[in-house]
Amino acid sequence: MQRIVIAVDSFKGTMDSIEVCDLIESSFNRVLPEVDTIKIPIADGGEGTVDSFLAALGGEKINVKVQDPLGREIEAFYGVLSDQKTAIIEVAAASGLPLVEGEENPLLTSTYGTGQLILAALDRGCENLIIGLGGSATTDGGIGMAAAWGIKFLGRNNKPIPLNGQGLGELRRIDAGGKDKRLDQCQILVASDVDNPLYGKKGAAYVFAPQKGADFEMVARLDRNLRNYSAVLHRDLGVSVANHPGSGAAGGLGAAFLAFSPAELKPGIDIILDSVRFDQLIAGADLIITGEGKLDGQSVHGKVPFGVAQRAKKKGIPVIAIVGDVGEGAEKIYAHGIDAIFSINRVAIPFSEAKKRSKEDLAAASSDLARLLKIASQVHRP
Amino acid sequence: MQRIVIAVDSFKGTMDSIEVCDLIESSFNRVLPEVDTIKIPIADGGEGTVDSFLAALGGEKINVKVQDPLGREIEAFYGVLSDQKTAIIEVAAASGLPLVEGEENPLLTSTYGTGQLILAALDRGCENLIIGLGGSATTDGGIGMAAAWGIKFLGRNNKPIPLNGQGLGELRRIDAGGKDKRLDQCQILVASDVDNPLYGKKGAAYVFAPQKGADFEMVARLDRNLRNYSAVLHRDLGVSVANHPGSGAAGGLGAAFLAFSPAELKPGIDIILDSVRFDQLIAGADLIITGEGKLDGQSVHGKVPFGVAQRAKKKGIPVIAIVGDVGEGAEKIYAHGIDAIFSINRVAIPFSEAKKRSKEDLAAASSDLARLLKIASQVHRP
Repeated sequence: MQRIVIAVDSFKGTMDSIEVCDLIESSFNRVLPEVDTIKIPIADGGEGTVDSFLAALGGEKINVKVQDPLGREIEAFYGVLSDQKTAIIEVAAASGLPLVEGEENPLLTSTYGTGQLILAALDRGCENLIIGLGGSATTDGGIGMAAAWGIKFLGRNNKPIPLNGQGLGELRRIDAGGKDKRLDQCQILVASDVDNPLYGKKGAAYVFAPQKGADFEMVARLDRNLRNYSAVLHRDLGVSVANHPGSGAAGGLGAAFLAFSPAELKPGIDIILDSVRFDQLIAGADLIITGEGKLDGQSVHGKVPFGVAQRAKKKGIPVIAIVGDVGEGAEKIYAHGIDAIFSINRVAIPFSEAKKRSKEDLAAASSDLARLLKIASQVHRP
Repeated sequence: MQRIVIAVDSFKGTMDSIEVCDLIESSFNRVLPEVDTIKIPIADGGEGTVDSFLAALGGEKINVKVQDPLGREIEAFYGVLSDQKTAIIEVAAASGLPLVEGEENPLLTSTYGTGQLILAALDRGCENLIIGLGGSATTDGGIGMAAAWGIKFLGRNNKPIPLNGQGLGELRRIDAGGKDKRLDQCQILVASDVDNPLYGKKGAAYVFAPQKGADFEMVARLDRNLRNYSAVLHRDLGVSVANHPGSGAAGGLGAAFLAFSPAELKPGIDIILDSVRFDQLIAGADLIITGEGKLDGQSVHGKVPFGVAQRAKKKGIPVIAIVGDVGEGAEKIYAHGIDAIFSINRVAIPFSEAKKRSKEDLAAASSDLARLLKIASQVHRP
C-alpha cells in the first residue's frame, strides 16, 4: 500500500467534506505513516462548494456586496482559483435558503445576487465559471440573475416586472440586447445533480418549491408562471429549454443559464473530478476512499461515491466507502465499483445523539480501517 | 490469506455465540471462498455454555430431571463430549434466573438441581467436569449443590436446614461424611469470570444478590448468613475459602466447589480455549476474528476478546474484533493484542431497533470486512 486517495462528500448535517477528508487523512497518516495520502474534498454544488474547490485546487475567496434573495444588501463571496481565470460560484452564497430563514416565499425571492456575483467574477477577469446550483431559495426561472447581466424582462406597457417567481407571471417580453457580452466568451460549467424540467409535475415548482416555502396553491401559480416564461423565451429568443434535463434546477436557474449563456449543465461530481484532474491523480493509487453521509439505493444515481467509483473502476483501483448510515439498497453499489462499505456508527444510538460524536466516530472508524489494512499488508508481505 | 479462525463470544441480548460465529463464517466464505475458516463459538460460562462446547468439540446433550431453584421438578441438561468422559454443566440450566422469573428471591432459591446434574454426569461415567457458573438465581453458598452430593447441613438440634440463602443463617454444623466419593476422583474446572469473595462489600450478596431480586435488607441478611456459613466451614472442615477469588461467584457456589471438591476456578475463556486446544488450532492462521456484544474498557479484564488476543499475540497473529457496540475506553484493548475493532452498527438507531436487525448487520459488516481483506490481498499480490 503506497498511495491512498481520499475523495469524500460532506456528511450532511454533521461535517463538511473538508472536515471529513481531513479526519480520514489524519487517521490514516497516524496508523500508516509510510503511505501517501491525497485528499480531494468533494463539492456537490451546494453550500461549501467554493471551499471544497479552493481546498482541492488552491485559490482565494473574494467577498462581494450583492443583493440577497429579498433584495437586501449582504456580503456574499465567490472563489478564484490560482489560475486567476476560474471562478467558483455557489448559488447558495447570494440566493440561498438560509438567507431568508423565517421569510421563505418563492414568489418573492430572486437570483439577482447570483448574477451580481458572476459579474464580479467577470470584472476580475475570470473566463471560466463553475457554478454550484444547490440550496437556492428561489423559483424565479433565473430572471433575477439574467437581469443583473443586463437582460430586460418586461410586462404590460413594457414596464419592468418584479424579478421573482411572481414577476414571471407578468412577463410579456424579453429584451436580451443589453446582455453583458463577456458572458458569451466564457466557459460556464453548471453543476446540476437533478434532471428536472422547467415546469410540470416534475418541474421546478412542483418538486422543489415546497421546500422553499410554497404551499400547494403557490406551487400551482409558480408552475403557471414558469410556463409563461418558457413561452416568452421561445417566442422572443427562439430558445426551447423547458424540457432540457436540469432546466428546472435551482428554481429554473438552469433554464436561464441555458437560454442566456453558453453554459453546459453537468453532474457536480464530474465537474469537480474533471477540475482536479481526478483520472490523473488516481493513477498509481492502491486504494480510493470515498463516502457520504448516507449511502443507499439512491447512491447509484450519480452521487459522489458512484461518480468516484466509476472512474476508479476504469483504472481497476479498489474503492471503499466510509459513510454515516448504510441505508436501504446500499448493496446495489457493489456492482458499480465500490468494493466495501463501512459505517462510522459504533454504538446503537439515535442520530440526534450520534451526530454529536460524528467526528470522533469518523476518526475512530478510519483508524480501525487503516489498522486492518496494516495487518493485511503484513500478512501479504512476502 | 489462507486461514482465518473465528472465536467470538455471544452478543448478549441478540445472538448466541454459535449464531455469531456461523454468520461471520458464512459471510467470509462467500467473499473469500479460497480461505479456510475455523469456527470456535466461545462460551462464557452462562447460558449457552453447553451448546458452545458441543459445537466446538462435538458430543451430545443429555436431559435430566432435577429440581429448579424453588424445588420444582424440571428437565434440565448437561453435555457429554465425544470422549464420553468430559461433562459440561451450566449452572443456569438447573439453577438459572430465568427459571424463577417473577418469583426471584435469593433467600429461597437453591443450587440443589446443579448438584443433581453433576451426580447424573458421574453416574454416566464422566470424570472431567467443566462447570459454567453464570446466570444463577441463588445466593445459597452452594449448599444446595453440596447437599445433593450427600453433605449434611444441620441447624439447631441437628435438624436439616433449608438449602437456600435463608438456611445459611440457621447453619450450626456441616457433616461431609456422606459425600459422594467419586467427586474426589474427578478433575473439576469451574469457569468463573469474577474475583469476588464470599461475603463483604464485594461479596456474593452485596454485588450479585440485587440482580437476583434482593432488596437492601435482604442483601444485608444474606451477607450475614454467608459469614455464618464461612465460620462453620472453617470450624467443621478446617477450610478457609471466603477470600479465595471467585468464592463469591454464583451466589457463593464458588466457595462450595472449593470447600467440597478438588475444583479449580479458572477464567471461562481459558477453560474453553484450553479445551479446544486453541494454541494448536491457531498455528498457521493469518487472522483471528474475535468479538462480543459490547467491547469497552472492561474488556481488558479477562473477557473473551482479551483472552483470545492474549494467545494470538504470543504467536504474532493479527486479531480483529467484530462487536455490537464499541463502548467507552475500548481503545485500551489495542495494547492487548486486538489490532482493529469494527462495530456492526450501520445506521444511527437506538438499540431497541438495532437488535431486530443485528443478524443482517453482522452478516453485512462481516462481508464488508472480507471484501476489504480481498482487495488488500490483491493490492499486495506480487
